[in-house]
Amino acid sequence: MSMSRTRSTFVSPIVEAYSWLDGMTFPSDRPLLNVSQAAPIDPPPEGLRQAMAESALNDNSAHLYGAVLGRNDLRTGLAAQISAHYDAEVSGDQIGITSGCNQAFAATIASLCEDGDEVIIPAPWYFNHKMWLDMSGVSAVPLMVDPDMRPDIDKAAALISARTRAIALVSPNNPCGTEYPADLLRAFYDLAKSNGLALILDETYRDFDSRSGPPHQLLQLPDWDQTLIHLYSFSKAYRLTGHRVGAIATSPAQLIEMGKFIDTVTICPNQLGQIGALWGIENLSDWVAGERDEILDRRAAIHEGFAILAERGWKLLGCGAYFAYVEHPFTQDSADIARKLVTDASILMLPGSMFMPSDDPAGARQFRIAFANVDRAGIDELFHRLASFQP
Amino acid sequence: MSMSRTRSTFVSPIVEAYSWLDGMTFPSDRPLLNVSQAAPIDPPPEGLRQAMAESALNDNSAHLYGAVLGRNDLRTGLAAQISAHYDAEVSGDQIGITSGCNQAFAATIASLCEDGDEVIIPAPWYFNHKMWLDMSGVSAVPLMVDPDMRPDIDKAAALISARTRAIALVSPNNPCGTEYPADLLRAFYDLAKSNGLALILDETYRDFDSRSGPPHQLLQLPDWDQTLIHLYSFSKAYRLTGHRVGAIATSPAQLIEMGKFIDTVTICPNQLGQIGALWGIENLSDWVAGERDEILDRRAAIHEGFAILAERGWKLLGCGAYFAYVEHPFTQDSADIARKLVTDASILMLPGSMFMPSDDPAGARQFRIAFANVDRAGIDELFHRLASFQP
Repeated sequence: MSMSRTRSTFVSPIVEAYSWLDGMTFPSDRPLLNVSQAAPIDPPPEGLRQAMAESALNDNSAHLYGAVLGRNDLRTGLAAQISAHYDAEVSGDQIGITSGCNQAFAATIASLCEDGDEVIIPAPWYFNHKMWLDMSGVSAVPLMVDPDMRPDIDKAAALISARTRAIALVSPNNPCGTEYPADLLRAFYDLAKSNGLALILDETYRDFDSRSGPPHQLLQLPDWDQTLIHLYSFSKAYRLTGHRVGAIATSPAQLIEMGKFIDTVTICPNQLGQIGALWGIENLSDWVAGERDEILDRRAAIHEGFAILAERGWKLLGCGAYFAYVEHPFTQDSADIARKLVTDASILMLPGSMFMPSDDPAGARQFRIAFANVDRAGIDELFHRLASFQP
Repeated sequence: MSMSRTRSTFVSPIVEAYSWLDGMTFPSDRPLLNVSQAAPIDPPPEGLRQAMAESALNDNSAHLYGAVLGRNDLRTGLAAQISAHYDAEVSGDQIGITSGCNQAFAATIASLCEDGDEVIIPAPWYFNHKMWLDMSGVSAVPLMVDPDMRPDIDKAAALISARTRAIALVSPNNPCGTEYPADLLRAFYDLAKSNGLALILDETYRDFDSRSGPPHQLLQLPDWDQTLIHLYSFSKAYRLTGHRVGAIATSPAQLIEMGKFIDTVTICPNQLGQIGALWGIENLSDWVAGERDEILDRRAAIHEGFAILAERGWKLLGCGAYFAYVEHPFTQDSADIARKLVTDASILMLPGSMFMPSDDPAGARQFRIAFANVDRAGIDELFHRLASFQP
């Protein structure tokens, strides 16, 4: 069988993990606790649903092809929201709308790289980034994070080669939960700029950052759009995962390049999702603030409840946004433990090896806990099950 | 500036052509006649819009991530519809849903090819296929069609090399309008199979074929799914262009490969579009039959009205589905004439050079007329404007 782009990478960890559930039934007194995926499980607020329904009925543009880079009203609306969030001046022509944030990353890489190029990504990484780099023929150069789960600027500098085209960061981080400090992001921006690289900064979890005020000042810099490619998702903030709407902020010229990719892969983002996203921008600021409070409370519950696991040798390596990243105390590999957690504890949780180079031993010691869908009682239950678990 | 995947191809002809309209105003007695794009301009029937609105309001699954390969009900529903249309037995696990038919093609190529591979495509070609092959590092090997606008099987056989992975056909054809005969498709299937290639068959315009009964028997063959990759779009049949829903029929194993690409580029097709597509399958057969009648009547109007152009040296090379493909009588290149048609005749029409290798002279002599949105009166007006036009 000949090679192909898809054969150069692995099956999505989410798809693989869900296959572990095939044919499984769980005892009624120990139902499945699914902490594998970072996605809302409730629908968006009723007002947003009504806005989408109204458009489906009465707005012809909701059913027709739209512009490759998205609806102008949404591009302008997001530019205004980003400008307010980051205390910056971003304009609509610096915004492109995509069919979800994964596509924003894919279009970015397609516009920057060709076969044989390299992109530096901190490890543990977001697996869909790694998969896309594999399928693009681009080497994902792993920058192993420090014990504080942050990437080190000097180690990054040492990884730059003649084939490096970009450094790609995620903050708040998936899978580690780490909120990268503003000065660290500034150092990465300067490193990228001085080496003629792009700095890709995926801020999908921006709205659940525990810090107040702009999380960084990069968008305030002159000519930021010549170096920075900011990625965003509407999926988490407004619970629009099923509608596939994400965004890119960078230079208009780079967006036109990306448009070739978007046009050829989806022609345009779907219209109703965009209409919903714009309604969210215009109406849901207070609601999102409440959602953030809830996520921050769950994060606090992770910190407070972790003692019971710490006593048993577990370590909390990182915690923020939708994720806790932990180290387990067992001798077995996390990939094997993950399967046993399904059968013995009704817990679906992704092993660290899914976020790591296969030759790195750290992944076998680690797990990601996607806690956004689990309330305080659920977190307590999760920790008690883990505390009594033996692989 | 370094190369990138997007820099290896051209800007979408649709995007380029629409840029010709920037700043243009058209006289009120000669409004723009846009025959550049093959897309419905009216919304879907009210029942479908109501079904989408109802789901947006009350169906939580409409807002949440779905399966990478699409909703099971839609996969099963399309399998049944395809089985009826082609007098075959196709099952739901042989169907994958995509974010539009362009993505179906992109996922197909990603699952078959790596850098340096080759795919044979008849020329004139569908430009988004050519763009995606360029961006994938795959050589699009042009198979120039015969004067009847059909690809020749012996010429195709002569183009097969050790790097060939697939032959990709579009029937009814975009841009030529040609309906490929069943025996020609069978010959291509046999050629592909005997050489270990995939036969990609894009049948986006299936529902507007002038022939009754199955347009080919390929889906009736044993093990068809080991060779054939059938592509379909819901955009035209149910006027869902703004919702981005397409489909693939092939083997379950190949679909799992494609799922890696789909997961990484969009995670899943958007849910409301899928809900609308299923409603269409279940409720709109008679309505689509009426739409087909209208398109076939417009096709007849093209044939009937062409005499006025034939007198002036124009030739009708192909006509079917949404498209007429024509040769003009002028000495100037079609690319230059196309610009002048905008300013002097208020006509937006794509030159043949947008569907051809740049070194082939035929494209300079040809135009595609996307007539689906133009009624009989509009076709008459178009032909009269063209008849009096001098470049």
